[in-house]
Amino acid sequence: MARFPRRKFLKSAGFGLFPAVIPFSAKANRSTSSRSPLNGRSVRFTSDGEIFEPAEYLAELQSVNERTPIVRDRYAQGGAVAALERAFVEKTGKEKAIYMPTGTMANELAISVLSGDNAKVFVQDTSHVYRDEADAAQRIFGKRLIGLAPGKTYFTLDELKAANENLAIDEHIPGKVGAVSIENPNRRMNGTVVPIEEIQRISGYCRHQNIPLHLDGARIFIASAYTGVDVRTYASYFDTVYISLYKYLGASGGAVLCGPAAIIDQMPLLIKIHGGLIAGNWLNAAMALHRLEGFEKRMKRAIETSQELFAALNATQKLKISPIAGGSNIHKLELDKRIDPMTLRDKLFEEFTIRIPPPNEKKELYLYVNETLLNQPIEYLLTAFRKCCGA
Amino acid sequence: MARFPRRKFLKSAGFGLFPAVIPFSAKANRSTSSRSPLNGRSVRFTSDGEIFEPAEYLAELQSVNERTPIVRDRYAQGGAVAALERAFVEKTGKEKAIYMPTGTMANELAISVLSGDNAKVFVQDTSHVYRDEADAAQRIFGKRLIGLAPGKTYFTLDELKAANENLAIDEHIPGKVGAVSIENPNRRMNGTVVPIEEIQRISGYCRHQNIPLHLDGARIFIASAYTGVDVRTYASYFDTVYISLYKYLGASGGAVLCGPAAIIDQMPLLIKIHGGLIAGNWLNAAMALHRLEGFEKRMKRAIETSQELFAALNATQKLKISPIAGGSNIHKLELDKRIDPMTLRDKLFEEFTIRIPPPNEKKELYLYVNETLLNQPIEYLLTAFRKCCGA
Amino acid sequence: MARFPRRKFLKSAGFGLFPAVIPFSAKANRSTSSRSPLNGRSVRFTSDGEIFEPAEYLAELQSVNERTPIVRDRYAQGGAVAALERAFVEKTGKEKAIYMPTGTMANELAISVLSGDNAKVFVQDTSHVYRDEADAAQRIFGKRLIGLAPGKTYFTLDELKAANENLAIDEHIPGKVGAVSIENPNRRMNGTVVPIEEIQRISGYCRHQNIPLHLDGARIFIASAYTGVDVRTYASYFDTVYISLYKYLGASGGAVLCGPAAIIDQMPLLIKIHGGLIAGNWLNAAMALHRLEGFEKRMKRAIETSQELFAALNATQKLKISPIAGGSNIHKLELDKRIDPMTLRDKLFEEFTIRIPPPNEKKELYLYVNETLLNQPIEYLLTAFRKCCGA
Amino acid sequence: MARFPRRKFLKSAGFGLFPAVIPFSAKANRSTSSRSPLNGRSVRFTSDGEIFEPAEYLAELQSVNERTPIVRDRYAQGGAVAALERAFVEKTGKEKAIYMPTGTMANELAISVLSGDNAKVFVQDTSHVYRDEADAAQRIFGKRLIGLAPGKTYFTLDELKAANENLAIDEHIPGKVGAVSIENPNRRMNGTVVPIEEIQRISGYCRHQNIPLHLDGARIFIASAYTGVDVRTYASYFDTVYISLYKYLGASGGAVLCGPAAIIDQMPLLIKIHGGLIAGNWLNAAMALHRLEGFEKRMKRAIETSQELFAALNATQKLKISPIAGGSNIHKLELDKRIDPMTLRDKLFEEFTIRIPPPNEKKELYLYVNETLLNQPIEYLLTAFRKCCGA
Repeated sequence: MARFPRRKFLKSAGFGLFPAVIPFSAKANRSTSSRSPLNGRSVRFTSDGEIFEPAEYLAELQSVNERTPIVRDRYAQGGAVAALERAFVEKTGKEKAIYMPTGTMANELAISVLSGDNAKVFVQDTSHVYRDEADAAQRIFGKRLIGLAPGKTYFTLDELKAANENLAIDEHIPGKVGAVSIENPNRRMNGTVVPIEEIQRISGYCRHQNIPLHLDGARIFIASAYTGVDVRTYASYFDTVYISLYKYLGASGGAVLCGPAAIIDQMPLLIKIHGGLIAGNWLNAAMALHRLEGFEKRMKRAIETSQELFAALNATQKLKISPIAGGSNIHKLELDKRIDPMTLRDKLFEEFTIRIPPPNEKKELYLYVNETLLNQPIEYLLTAFRKCCGA
Repeated sequence: MARFPRRKFLKSAGFGLFPAVIPFSAKANRSTSSRSPLNGRSVRFTSDGEIFEPAEYLAELQSVNERTPIVRDRYAQGGAVAALERAFVEKTGKEKAIYMPTGTMANELAISVLSGDNAKVFVQDTSHVYRDEADAAQRIFGKRLIGLAPGKTYFTLDELKAANENLAIDEHIPGKVGAVSIENPNRRMNGTVVPIEEIQRISGYCRHQNIPLHLDGARIFIASAYTGVDVRTYASYFDTVYISLYKYLGASGGAVLCGPAAIIDQMPLLIKIHGGLIAGNWLNAAMALHRLEGFEKRMKRAIETSQELFAALNATQKLKISPIAGGSNIHKLELDKRIDPMTLRDKLFEEFTIRIPPPNEKKELYLYVNETLLNQPIEYLLTAFRKCCGA
Repeated sequence: MARFPRRKFLKSAGFGLFPAVIPFSAKANRSTSSRSPLNGRSVRFTSDGEIFEPAEYLAELQSVNERTPIVRDRYAQGGAVAALERAFVEKTGKEKAIYMPTGTMANELAISVLSGDNAKVFVQDTSHVYRDEADAAQRIFGKRLIGLAPGKTYFTLDELKAANENLAIDEHIPGKVGAVSIENPNRRMNGTVVPIEEIQRISGYCRHQNIPLHLDGARIFIASAYTGVDVRTYASYFDTVYISLYKYLGASGGAVLCGPAAIIDQMPLLIKIHGGLIAGNWLNAAMALHRLEGFEKRMKRAIETSQELFAALNATQKLKISPIAGGSNIHKLELDKRIDPMTLRDKLFEEFTIRIPPPNEKKELYLYVNETLLNQPIEYLLTAFRKCCGA
Repeated sequence: MARFPRRKFLKSAGFGLFPAVIPFSAKANRSTSSRSPLNGRSVRFTSDGEIFEPAEYLAELQSVNERTPIVRDRYAQGGAVAALERAFVEKTGKEKAIYMPTGTMANELAISVLSGDNAKVFVQDTSHVYRDEADAAQRIFGKRLIGLAPGKTYFTLDELKAANENLAIDEHIPGKVGAVSIENPNRRMNGTVVPIEEIQRISGYCRHQNIPLHLDGARIFIASAYTGVDVRTYASYFDTVYISLYKYLGASGGAVLCGPAAIIDQMPLLIKIHGGLIAGNWLNAAMALHRLEGFEKRMKRAIETSQELFAALNATQKLKISPIAGGSNIHKLELDKRIDPMTLRDKLFEEFTIRIPPPNEKKELYLYVNETLLNQPIEYLLTAFRKCCGA
């Protein structure tokens, strides 16, 4: 284990290394870290949820602490961490839940323990675990991830079955497949979701074949908000479920892994061995626990508001905002050719504290619907877009 | 990688799994998580530094943010994390510094990269890396740690040389030793320190033999405060240095690893692969940066105060507080036989908000000197102990 | 590392676990191990080369030893092993050669050392290292093999380039590709060969990109015999080359890995660590060295003979033997519908001691051309086939 | 896994890398590989058993084959390998036996499977697995071998118990000990043996504690011949037993691992994954099977002969041959000061084809008792020594 190409890493780290790192233009960035009182009311079409600036984060936690004193954990035991774990047991219907420092560790440890001594694990070719975890499954855990359905959001049961059965033909010592992992929604595919019917079929097959099934549900609450399938129902089809604490629950980091006691009880030692046992985790746990409360309702309202807003904006003919087919909270934004995207972006931010992402490498624009839509009245948003688009 | 004996783990987790988890008696524990305004003025002879309760933590960071706005990092890049890394480069004189989620990851990655393809690494038999990292070096990194000087704080150069030379006799394919690691001060040996002269000798030998040398300096600032050898001088004898952010710098977790760019530049990718790349780390980084400022001066005053206090208390003849031979901030407390330790402990806490640790398994009592001594005037402390001891 | 599904393994071990294990019908098997003097003159269209029965093996080595005394190696050093290594240096033009206990160990260690700390390695989707080494690269060496050109004999430079360049798009932390491996000829694809022009192009690209290139040339002598490109020329395009000792050189096992000293000199320790250092290897080395001498000439004669024989047999209209497109020594055998393949097979063996393989799962018949064709005059073979086919 | 210090390796490889590689003086070496008819009658006090020169090896196997045809195995299945495995099941009383390419692989795979997910394994500090397997257990299998009883042949139950119990005190997350391994006889300690009473005690403890127990019985037949405890009895105290095929059974390499089906049935896939599955192994298996027959009787006779011989030689007063305390077949040879050891060695070889080892690094001389003593009448040996010693 050792030397890695730093140059390459820095290069990619500069832009796009991690999904949430969306650089703003100079103007927009200038105020990123201000303690402006406006921040709390800013609307951000740039991520799955609220990302608090430091002053906001501290104020939010202080108000939490004033209502019910936060109890600190000690090495992820007790206090806010235990409370968070209980809440996730409740939400997912799984037997146990455990705090994890990162989603990568949650995915990797879950897949490693589920698959045991079997090397092969089926995953989406477009999934986070296959494309965005720096080959940890292979490097650290000796797994052979087999990517299915390249270029697509998900593999079907037929594709999974065919792949599994072909192993017996294509390999002399195929061994049993150790696990199947599904990312839902699929981040690399713009938050598109795996249909619940396909999940049901795959789950039935896996249980029949005795192949453990893992859900990379980093953003499963977003999927749930759009599909109407609740998180508990999603979770019921899987052995283990990982859910992120910072994509839309406001924490500065962390994740939770839920599953049967026989799996989750193995995690404390594994987290320690892998260097992930942090002394205090209450600053993340308390925030996530706080934001989890009522999240579903707020997200529902945000979606309704977004639909109303987008319909009104589309009527201006200056822009077109449309849901992605099979998608969740990410929407395509198409602009009248006379509107320059970066100018629009700067204006929205400077004049209205509304953030939208810059165009991606393919010059496509996307808007993320999240709770921050509720930070301002819909009229404010309408006016802002209209004015900045010259509508 | 998989199944671990949960029962064993839970059992040990209950008591003594981690050094800082010192259970209080029922009474003392009751108020652990209160938001009592007294907390800020409580004196704790129980750890290497201030461990903030949530309300204090948030208040402390808010006051920091009011003076100079905290800038959040994004996946450990920029903001408070970058500022902290710069401060550690300054303190240690090393070329680069990098934030790590845990000390275990800092130690393990440093030793792994330093030793490269060589399996053998010499460490103290009593060190954290040998005894308290759940065999991560062997399990994850394929290393063979060889523990030297069992039962002792440190190995001498002579012992190291003999061990190294004996390998050529005792093994048919000894291979080159990949690294040497020294923990200083040594936690399992009650914070006793490795003499600077021995470090100099070992460092000279290792450089001559081209064997990289790592410092597990989790508490190196404590050693420095007692020995008068500054951290920069200690660091100069090692290739890499790990320093904790939560033992005495008040952060809720985290560590920093310092060393040459050629080593530190390999870490971002390794941290990612090992599941340690957390989205936001500013809540730890900003606190540690804040507490680092002036730490040395405050610690100096705390030491002077403790010496004055202990001398006065020893004069009462009711108790005897004495420094450990070769030690740093941990002192032995011996009580007149008529004083019950648990009663004393409860009284000190209930009546004076002063915390002392319970007796260890060998019925020994220890007091930790740290910054919290400065939270009350020395007269207050004297009175408290006198009254509770019946002096 | 541990428990594997024995049942699955036994099942697959029963038939087809290893390519060369071709079960005969009861009749044919009966005499497999006889010491019949005929064995030495039997003709076998069933493998890449002579597979000696014990009596033959011992007799062959004894005659070798009578001409020039065989010197035994000691733990793969000296004697017949050193002589074999020298012969392979000569044949391949590489700087060094080293004896390996198995082809799997040769491939795995070569790829591991070439790729260093980089996880990704491009291979043919249909290659031995991807399909037939029980995921050793992932399990033991932490590699991520990426299979290119599924269902095809080889990937083109364009496919390799596209795959390499797409990584930068498809992955956030792609890392440098550690190595490329090419199996030539490709066993799973019936011994079809990678065109030398494509090898040249790929080699040029890899050198330009500084990506090491490995040749799984288990049967490279067979490719060479059919393409006319000599082994030294093939080897010149690769960093490391593995060649089998038992596929056509008559040894009971073993392999040789050739390459630059900087790579090969790392192998003795790695072989030891991986449990592959055998006390005496001269029984394989001496045989392979013996059979290597003159192999190319004999193989050339065998090919010419086979062409003459097949043309004559095709003229009978009872069967059709045709080279595989892009193939080497494996030929397709099509029979008149009135001929039962298993009856033909039994007759050929019983009456003429000629062995042909049974039909594969797809009911296809293949004949392997190898040196054993020279064990009988062409007229004998012609007569045998004619008689058994009723021609 | 990668770069190793070649220079160091070559240096150590030159002398003493592997125990059996005892360099002869120039004169003695000259004829090492001769086909001299004398070889078959040479007497070698240099190893645990007969090490055949090529001509002898082939002749020996040919005579075996003439009596009962040797059937070749196919990838270690069937034929002579299966027959050998059956014989070892019989000898050891274990449920199953499996052929292994090397003793290192046998030890490492046994310990790995026995210990499962537990990292810690107790071994003798002086054992082969701790000192002579190039840290394979740590490097490849992630194990932490803990060496007990440094400088001694074996650890007692008391030492094992203390070490095991201390882990709970000395480590925060000790985990269960995965396995205990005992090498008997202990090669590094000149073939001294572990008393059967101590083995019984340790075995009882391990079974009670549910800790699997492995026997590195590379030379267990030698121990058995000297202690009178039969191999089956030894084996009964262990879960798995490894026995070498080349130390005294004449094979050119190979080993057998015996144990319960639940363990042994996992081995075929593991051997394949680790690159140890060799196409043909009958050349070793048939030889070992042949030499196994009657070994115990021949060894008994050799021991009796040696005792008579040594007594007679000691009576000459020119030399003193004495058994090592607690030893097996290795005896100390002390010479009258006027006799030069290298001159004696050369004379014995040149004039009588009797080989003795050169002095070791400490200038000590040792004689190995083995079957080759029976190659000449005792009078011949007596005369030889007397003449060469001037007695």
